[in-house]
Amino acid sequence: MLGCRQALIISIKDEHREGRAVDIEALANQYSSKTPEDILRLALESFDNVAISFSGAEDVVLVDMASRIQPDVRVFSLDTGRLHPETYRFLDRVRERYPIRFEALSPDAMAVERLVREKGLFSFYQDGHQECCGIRKVGPLRRRLQSLDAWVTGQRKDQSLATRATIAVVERDAAFSTPEHALVKFNPLANWTAAEVWDYIRSNDVPYNELHERGFVSIGCEPCTRAILPYQQEREGRWWWEDAADKECGLHKANVAVRRR
Amino acid sequence: MLGCRQALIISIKDEHREGRAVDIEALANQYSSKTPEDILRLALESFDNVAISFSGAEDVVLVDMASRIQPDVRVFSLDTGRLHPETYRFLDRVRERYPIRFEALSPDAMAVERLVREKGLFSFYQDGHQECCGIRKVGPLRRRLQSLDAWVTGQRKDQSLATRATIAVVERDAAFSTPEHALVKFNPLANWTAAEVWDYIRSNDVPYNELHERGFVSIGCEPCTRAILPYQQEREGRWWWEDAADKECGLHKANVAVRRR
Amino acid sequence: MLGCRQALIISIKDEHREGRAVDIEALANQYSSKTPEDILRLALESFDNVAISFSGAEDVVLVDMASRIQPDVRVFSLDTGRLHPETYRFLDRVRERYPIRFEALSPDAMAVERLVREKGLFSFYQDGHQECCGIRKVGPLRRRLQSLDAWVTGQRKDQSLATRATIAVVERDAAFSTPEHALVKFNPLANWTAAEVWDYIRSNDVPYNELHERGFVSIGCEPCTRAILPYQQEREGRWWWEDAADKECGLHKANVAVRRR
Amino acid sequence: MLGCRQALIISIKDEHREGRAVDIEALANQYSSKTPEDILRLALESFDNVAISFSGAEDVVLVDMASRIQPDVRVFSLDTGRLHPETYRFLDRVRERYPIRFEALSPDAMAVERLVREKGLFSFYQDGHQECCGIRKVGPLRRRLQSLDAWVTGQRKDQSLATRATIAVVERDAAFSTPEHALVKFNPLANWTAAEVWDYIRSNDVPYNELHERGFVSIGCEPCTRAILPYQQEREGRWWWEDAADKECGLHKANVAVRRR
Repeated sequence: MLGCRQALIISIKDEHREGRAVDIEALANQYSSKTPEDILRLALESFDNVAISFSGAEDVVLVDMASRIQPDVRVFSLDTGRLHPETYRFLDRVRERYPIRFEALSPDAMAVERLVREKGLFSFYQDGHQECCGIRKVGPLRRRLQSLDAWVTGQRKDQSLATRATIAVVERDAAFSTPEHALVKFNPLANWTAAEVWDYIRSNDVPYNELHERGFVSIGCEPCTRAILPYQQEREGRWWWEDAADKECGLHKANVAVRRR
Repeated sequence: MLGCRQALIISIKDEHREGRAVDIEALANQYSSKTPEDILRLALESFDNVAISFSGAEDVVLVDMASRIQPDVRVFSLDTGRLHPETYRFLDRVRERYPIRFEALSPDAMAVERLVREKGLFSFYQDGHQECCGIRKVGPLRRRLQSLDAWVTGQRKDQSLATRATIAVVERDAAFSTPEHALVKFNPLANWTAAEVWDYIRSNDVPYNELHERGFVSIGCEPCTRAILPYQQEREGRWWWEDAADKECGLHKANVAVRRR
Repeated sequence: MLGCRQALIISIKDEHREGRAVDIEALANQYSSKTPEDILRLALESFDNVAISFSGAEDVVLVDMASRIQPDVRVFSLDTGRLHPETYRFLDRVRERYPIRFEALSPDAMAVERLVREKGLFSFYQDGHQECCGIRKVGPLRRRLQSLDAWVTGQRKDQSLATRATIAVVERDAAFSTPEHALVKFNPLANWTAAEVWDYIRSNDVPYNELHERGFVSIGCEPCTRAILPYQQEREGRWWWEDAADKECGLHKANVAVRRR
Repeated sequence: MLGCRQALIISIKDEHREGRAVDIEALANQYSSKTPEDILRLALESFDNVAISFSGAEDVVLVDMASRIQPDVRVFSLDTGRLHPETYRFLDRVRERYPIRFEALSPDAMAVERLVREKGLFSFYQDGHQECCGIRKVGPLRRRLQSLDAWVTGQRKDQSLATRATIAVVERDAAFSTPEHALVKFNPLANWTAAEVWDYIRSNDVPYNELHERGFVSIGCEPCTRAILPYQQEREGRWWWEDAADKECGLHKANVAVRRR
């Protein structure tokens, strides 16, 4: 218990470029009602090794906000090899529109080949999406996060009552921190509603994934995403053959698993 | 003024099949917080010559509710000749699923030919939609309404702050009544929200237009309807090149024009 | 028999604008190996009351050719009320691109309403397409042809071995002529192959129906047309639930029925 | 020159499972007018380490034919990470329909990441497709071919006058053989026309990629493939922004480059 508390004390950059010890939980409380821009600024100014994880959906607002704060901000997307053609086009439009440093992370060829050889290209419909997400998303993400001290995600509380209702605006990443390496996760949109995100997109003329014009709200891999009906909960468009409580791909697994302390 | 008041007194069927004078405004007040089913039952039991106007969109809930009250209820759609292929398929699925008496109303051939000869097939983008709607929707509707004493629509207050905020659950039809012929309009869904309509559709396994799976919410003619973005107001998918206050096709024109009394 | 021969003698315009008696069969022989442009010029110069029937598909080459000969040539399309949205857009693009006099012919409202009331919107899948085509295509066409002395179609021999193998480049219209009114039909593309038509379209930058970019070759009404596979015969995309020999909508019925007098 | 001649003498399996020296050019002549099935049988019976390269398009006929000869035949596809969703679905349908041993080969993660980091996700539109194909197709193919003695492709002469007019039914693979390792390439469909391939598919009820129902003929990666117009040459649907003579992805580069000897 004590060890756990200690892990929450991390070192951030101060104005004099020297490390300063900070209590993450105190920071989360302090920023819990700040704007997404404030939280983003905190993330970008506190860490040199920080990057935004961009899914190719409405979390593009983070890219828009961040590039106003730090134009060459690092942004990465998980290119699972199974994204919609529309999503690839959108990622590239974002890459061209903003002066960001953009990366797409690819899964390990051998791991993908082994999965397909043994179970085919759609095993997730039978076995659940965890195995495939593990190879195509979590693996490349884990590799990338090893060289980061903090990352920024587009998670929001309103995305899922089952798994995201208690997200903090900043937290120690319970899934990807290691005993040797504390990782901080910022969720600047945690308290925003989907309606606020879309107001921002329209008001600021932010580019968006053209799938949003065809009934898609939450967007992931092509075989695992579908359009939803009007007034349907957005996560019903993801892994619809599984239970609501399982609808996390592993990036934010701690949402579900570590919600204790 | 007195004449106007008098016009609101109409004759409805009572249990003994004899006419009974009723004050429409009193009825509207009495039913203002009743369920859609109650209002529909009132409509179907008060009039022999009554029919439901079905647009091919989420107002299918009216057909579902009505067919439980009166299985061979009359339902008509305005086949403008420019509906989506998906809407034609949906209309026919509804016709086959329910024991209703279904009609599709067609526009006058000469009037359509004249419009196209003079202005082409897409004049509404330049001249506004009123002329085309007048020929393809209002004309056939007016003809049909002449043989009805009452009709039922799927209008809801929440569809448009600009034009539909004050719809009554039952009203004298200010647009289609004539001095010789009082027409009553029932709006059983006036007080429902879109979310309630969609809850009903999903809970009762009501068939729906497949366009709703592609980002379409409000659905009209193909060239004049488009999908909307998440959290965009539904009427932004209709006649999007025009101002919000003009977004009535003429069926419910009185919503805008006659809002006086 | 003699009367039949005589019927083939029709009167055409000569240079001095006076009628000149012509033997149609002789003309057909004389023009059997002429170019489509030659045949079109014959049609447009021989008759004042002549119009091109334009289906909204690759017969657009006739419009392109004709508008070079006579810019304000009359062109009509049969707007069945069930065309593809893409076809309506294409018709209007053609109307705007060329200085032609364009008309869209609409079916009789009462006839359409009766059919739908009795059999629904897709009766052709059960009863065959003749009844629906009769109302939506043949009726309006017959009405229009009454005021014409000649019409021009895009029929080609290579479209169907079963029904179109012996089309003449000009013929007395066996289906729509009446004892009182001889009607001449020109088929300038009779001897062209589909490949030649498409070479013309591409070489001359003629606009084409965007459905041709999605596997559609022959294009009719939306519910009765489908894309075909590579190297599939083009008429397999029309009324595919019926036998090949029935695949005429009635416009060119004589192709099948009257093939020999 | 002599060395080159010598390389064409390769060792194949005979009935007694012992190597037998064979002159490839003589074999090519001997089989030049044999059926695809005969050529396939030669390939499968001559080599233990042989596999079919399956693009996910109409070369599915090879899988159908081969699985009748040797049900557990090895089939691999190059999963570039940018195939159409429809192609992934089709690959899996083929994998489930036939008892084959199916593999999908993935590109090296680091190589893909580097390309995207430097040039984005659509560099091929500017720089040509060779670099991207090199990473996503040729690399994984080269790796796989190292453990094979022969492979089978669906190349046909009629696919391209510019690059495929002289394909032999069997040949030493000039692109992927190494001084230490001779690789034989079989092209059983070399002499078939596209029409024959499609006749086979329809006659034998072979599953096909649903893109073929939308105007797609030749099918590669999603950003680099498009539907073609009726009667357009099939390779015009591939890398359409480049010259015809460059339209090989590198798998069959020797078609163009090594056509000397």
